[in-house]
Amino acid sequence: MKALVFHGPGKRSWDEVPDPKLQDPGDAVIRVDAVTICGTDLHILKGDVPAVEPGRILGHEAVGTVQEVGPSVTTVRPGDRVLISCITACGRCRFCRESAYGQCLGGGGWILGHRIDGVQAGYVRVPFADTSVHPLPQEVGDEAALMLADILPTAYEVGVLGGRVTPGDVVAVVGAGPIGLAAILTARLFAPSRIIAIDPSGARREAARRQGAHIALAPGENPEGRVRELTEGLGADVAIEAVGLPGTFELCTRLIRPGGRVANVGVHGGPATLHLEELWIRNVTLTTGLVDTHSTPTLLRMLAAGQLDVSGFTTHRFPLGRMEEAYEVFEQASKTGALKVALSRT
Amino acid sequence: MKALVFHGPGKRSWDEVPDPKLQDPGDAVIRVDAVTICGTDLHILKGDVPAVEPGRILGHEAVGTVQEVGPSVTTVRPGDRVLISCITACGRCRFCRESAYGQCLGGGGWILGHRIDGVQAGYVRVPFADTSVHPLPQEVGDEAALMLADILPTAYEVGVLGGRVTPGDVVAVVGAGPIGLAAILTARLFAPSRIIAIDPSGARREAARRQGAHIALAPGENPEGRVRELTEGLGADVAIEAVGLPGTFELCTRLIRPGGRVANVGVHGGPATLHLEELWIRNVTLTTGLVDTHSTPTLLRMLAAGQLDVSGFTTHRFPLGRMEEAYEVFEQASKTGALKVALSRT
Amino acid sequence: MKALVFHGPGKRSWDEVPDPKLQDPGDAVIRVDAVTICGTDLHILKGDVPAVEPGRILGHEAVGTVQEVGPSVTTVRPGDRVLISCITACGRCRFCRESAYGQCLGGGGWILGHRIDGVQAGYVRVPFADTSVHPLPQEVGDEAALMLADILPTAYEVGVLGGRVTPGDVVAVVGAGPIGLAAILTARLFAPSRIIAIDPSGARREAARRQGAHIALAPGENPEGRVRELTEGLGADVAIEAVGLPGTFELCTRLIRPGGRVANVGVHGGPATLHLEELWIRNVTLTTGLVDTHSTPTLLRMLAAGQLDVSGFTTHRFPLGRMEEAYEVFEQASKTGALKVALSRT
Amino acid sequence: MKALVFHGPGKRSWDEVPDPKLQDPGDAVIRVDAVTICGTDLHILKGDVPAVEPGRILGHEAVGTVQEVGPSVTTVRPGDRVLISCITACGRCRFCRESAYGQCLGGGGWILGHRIDGVQAGYVRVPFADTSVHPLPQEVGDEAALMLADILPTAYEVGVLGGRVTPGDVVAVVGAGPIGLAAILTARLFAPSRIIAIDPSGARREAARRQGAHIALAPGENPEGRVRELTEGLGADVAIEAVGLPGTFELCTRLIRPGGRVANVGVHGGPATLHLEELWIRNVTLTTGLVDTHSTPTLLRMLAAGQLDVSGFTTHRFPLGRMEEAYEVFEQASKTGALKVALSRT
Repeated sequence: MKALVFHGPGKRSWDEVPDPKLQDPGDAVIRVDAVTICGTDLHILKGDVPAVEPGRILGHEAVGTVQEVGPSVTTVRPGDRVLISCITACGRCRFCRESAYGQCLGGGGWILGHRIDGVQAGYVRVPFADTSVHPLPQEVGDEAALMLADILPTAYEVGVLGGRVTPGDVVAVVGAGPIGLAAILTARLFAPSRIIAIDPSGARREAARRQGAHIALAPGENPEGRVRELTEGLGADVAIEAVGLPGTFELCTRLIRPGGRVANVGVHGGPATLHLEELWIRNVTLTTGLVDTHSTPTLLRMLAAGQLDVSGFTTHRFPLGRMEEAYEVFEQASKTGALKVALSRT
Repeated sequence: MKALVFHGPGKRSWDEVPDPKLQDPGDAVIRVDAVTICGTDLHILKGDVPAVEPGRILGHEAVGTVQEVGPSVTTVRPGDRVLISCITACGRCRFCRESAYGQCLGGGGWILGHRIDGVQAGYVRVPFADTSVHPLPQEVGDEAALMLADILPTAYEVGVLGGRVTPGDVVAVVGAGPIGLAAILTARLFAPSRIIAIDPSGARREAARRQGAHIALAPGENPEGRVRELTEGLGADVAIEAVGLPGTFELCTRLIRPGGRVANVGVHGGPATLHLEELWIRNVTLTTGLVDTHSTPTLLRMLAAGQLDVSGFTTHRFPLGRMEEAYEVFEQASKTGALKVALSRT
Repeated sequence: MKALVFHGPGKRSWDEVPDPKLQDPGDAVIRVDAVTICGTDLHILKGDVPAVEPGRILGHEAVGTVQEVGPSVTTVRPGDRVLISCITACGRCRFCRESAYGQCLGGGGWILGHRIDGVQAGYVRVPFADTSVHPLPQEVGDEAALMLADILPTAYEVGVLGGRVTPGDVVAVVGAGPIGLAAILTARLFAPSRIIAIDPSGARREAARRQGAHIALAPGENPEGRVRELTEGLGADVAIEAVGLPGTFELCTRLIRPGGRVANVGVHGGPATLHLEELWIRNVTLTTGLVDTHSTPTLLRMLAAGQLDVSGFTTHRFPLGRMEEAYEVFEQASKTGALKVALSRT
Repeated sequence: MKALVFHGPGKRSWDEVPDPKLQDPGDAVIRVDAVTICGTDLHILKGDVPAVEPGRILGHEAVGTVQEVGPSVTTVRPGDRVLISCITACGRCRFCRESAYGQCLGGGGWILGHRIDGVQAGYVRVPFADTSVHPLPQEVGDEAALMLADILPTAYEVGVLGGRVTPGDVVAVVGAGPIGLAAILTARLFAPSRIIAIDPSGARREAARRQGAHIALAPGENPEGRVRELTEGLGADVAIEAVGLPGTFELCTRLIRPGGRVANVGVHGGPATLHLEELWIRNVTLTTGLVDTHSTPTLLRMLAAGQLDVSGFTTHRFPLGRMEEAYEVFEQASKTGALKVALSRT
């Protein structure tokens, strides 16, 4: 089969590699029908994620068709169309028993395209298939389902649930890339009064408005002041960090009201400054998290029920064989306007 | 009457001043029967709290007897023995309606000995008396009640409830001064498996053990390693910061497990470094807070029921007239071993 | 002034009575600008609420203009346009401190038109005005605000929050009168997947669909079977009882899934049978409650922000002087199709 | 091997039966080292649980040593000493993913000694071993561990967590058999102010006092009045039903305060009357549940740490071969004073 192989920092290629095989009784081998690229894949290519070794097939967001399952797999069988979640769960360890699958101690967590070969390929082996893939209802299309492999559960769990968005809240979302947009979309499930998106890119601010942000500001348009105007001087109830830089995190801590929440979703490469001399007295809550994907079944049900319109996320589409071109488009998002790129078998 | 008056940084004296009078319909004038000194009073004296103007009477922790009440006061009357809480609550604003009295927008919050004259005096005027003082049951003595004016609700609400201590948890308490010790005492209400106290002072480590810490370590005794040993390498469920320095806060963020909580109780004068490059993926929750004293009625009930033994907190006792001596003892805690000093009228 | 006076079971009249006066320092006297009639008023007229004595002015849902306030009132003043909540709160007792205003121990709770004279009159005295009325933003009209005096907070707090409606849930609402319709409207703030309304009246089923119910069934249309079909045989996540009869309550307990919640909002005159032989093993939660109105400020904010469309609730409008006619129309709701009737000064 | 076999209502015997064998890849065959009898076993013998067919081996509470495991089992291996939980969990279905193992849809739940052969035997086959047995730390003895197979997690999860016991609460426990006593023991993990046990048996009231009840009353000693005296007339914060009769459930609903919680733990054979005409206005929460055993790892950790003293539960001890005698003693608990009877291999 063909696969997108990491060959060390800065190097990737679409190579011919051997097909994956079942290794453990809980494995499934799945044919990849649709797949996408994550910002994290770009981080890996820059060399920011040293756990990824040269030779590794990348990718952790896909939809596919089960080909073969190990003897202990009971919930899916060959022919089933499934969502391959970015998180693999052993289902047995302390954290899996608490639905904290992202922190799996039994060999799962984020492993696809990281510690084992990933989904940007013709086929993929998924361990612990019973607790790591989700059968897809017929009414959910591949491209829509792809948005539930990572970005929607991440934005919803780490951003919206982490930040405890509540009806009537004023919510600031800092960063309007795919994760920020997914945070806007899923925050609306809790009927906030106002969503204020903040992003330097005009195109992304426009996308934020389309997803339902009431106001979209550039960083230079005094977001702190605007939020205070809307909140009788108090600040936002919730700020969701969807960038991963010290400055955007620190902005979040300034945007919230006493008793407010900052939910960090961004992937950070370095420390931020926490102004405890101001925050100690303000009853704030800061949360971080890797997605657990415990919400994936619920999000799938909502997608099937027509409650989540994810049609605006995919900006570019390719056949699977043009993976390298898809990478180029995604890497140059500021030029191409790419949000999510979808590659499909057909 | 006599009162402890702040005369600018470094200057305080026990002065003759006019008795306070009722000003608003919700006021009470209360005779101070017992009073204590807070670490915050020392901060004020260093000049760290610029809102405190020269001429201000200090103090926000007292027990007293109501002398006179304004016409709208309905829940206490002259002769009632009451706890004067460090937090005054208007009872009417948005935050008071949510029991977030510490953030009161209607003229309350921490105002005694800060924005208005405090309790280190013969008498004190307390605004919003109906929602700011607590009638004392007969079985609760003055000295025990004093511990509920600030340190117990602060440690319990901001530390223990903020950190969501749960039965079976491993809890690290960084700092074993009065607040840290109160955190140990009140954490035990939730039956943690292990409480590890960390403090450089041997006397305070000893006090921590007396309050119920299972292990007490000096910072140099590898607290991170010891906590990992106790937790199969994972880290503590909860870390409570009870010092107020960047280093102790950062230690807390290293002590906790994935999914763990850091509850900051310490008063900070400067920023800390938040290692988001490590924390973003660990599902951590950090909380801060000024006490709201919403738990004070519950803590009083537990004190009356004999569930809270606060007898170990008061190390030195003085008559009210020896206020300056009490300050000296408290200021030199590392020499005198002072935890809380109690001054009483009789 | 004129007022609707209860003269014992079955007897009411629109009488000339003396104007109310300030009695306590926390009182406000308010001119009634708009008022409505509650199903509970009809219960009183039937003699079901013995605490209501002959001579009592009825009514607990109004909008008005403050005329005069007592000396301790600080948050409203003459000329302010306010919502008069069905719940009066002393703001000082144990339950008020926990935002459980409906259970007020200090002389509040549901007292208007019950233990003291109510709002179906030209003027009304409201005790504890600071914690019992809500200043109205200009953009909220009288008729819309009336819906927030009782039915919206009742349906939202007791039904939707009591039942812990969560995104993706399947919610059954039994009864589509004003409270049931308000439950449908406010349940939507949490993005349930499906709302199934059940009511014998075709007109009310139609109203339920207009408020956002996805399915509206008559009791004879096998609601249990239909809910099971929608939920893979499991049952609804939440059932909201909005009638107040044993049969509808018992239906709710049959409609829910293992782990589901029944939130009772209906006012019951007699006991129901609880089938513990089936429910003991099913992990169900049943909740009841009188509204606390702690959500009223939030609901007002959402109303002002255009998030709540309450225009469908008021079916009939009268000038204040035609109170008796309004009662007749409301009493014969099955003929007149009345949901809420609004009476206004102008 | 020998096993206690149900032969239809009223009939049981200690028979020679074939040893169990592995059937599915996730199975374990376990040698039973210690086992106990549950009140539910007596219900089965009375014919109250028709799902149990003649020929079934009874029992769902045991400690044993793993003999053999299927190919997909990864967390235990032959020789491991394990707790066999009363609940078996497939670990893959919707409810297992939410830690609601008792409601397992994938073939688990309460099945041992119910739908498949149980643990009152020399050996037992346990399906889904990875998610249904718990390795035992060395410091936990067999007899102590037995108390964690059912009664402690049941009392803790369904009673104490279901009733949301909180520090300072007044808690009524109705019924002081093994489950009621376990509720008293585990309620103390949340530091209630007062625990009031209610039971007609003097011996059980005495046992309740030994477990930590502050007050133990016979039903005729006016428990409602006594609880009101202790609570300023309000009622208990929490009432835990640990009997399973209509009268005791109804007593619980009368014992609680406005805003209080009733947690039903008892197994009911018939309906109770729910006095909604009184409860609708009181903001009460009623919960039911079969145990999920999600707390078992935490309880094991606390047992190992010496936080839970379960030594008082076992009143009678037998070698495994005297199973029938053990049944007789347990069946006549009112004469023998039996709480739990422990049978062990050695």
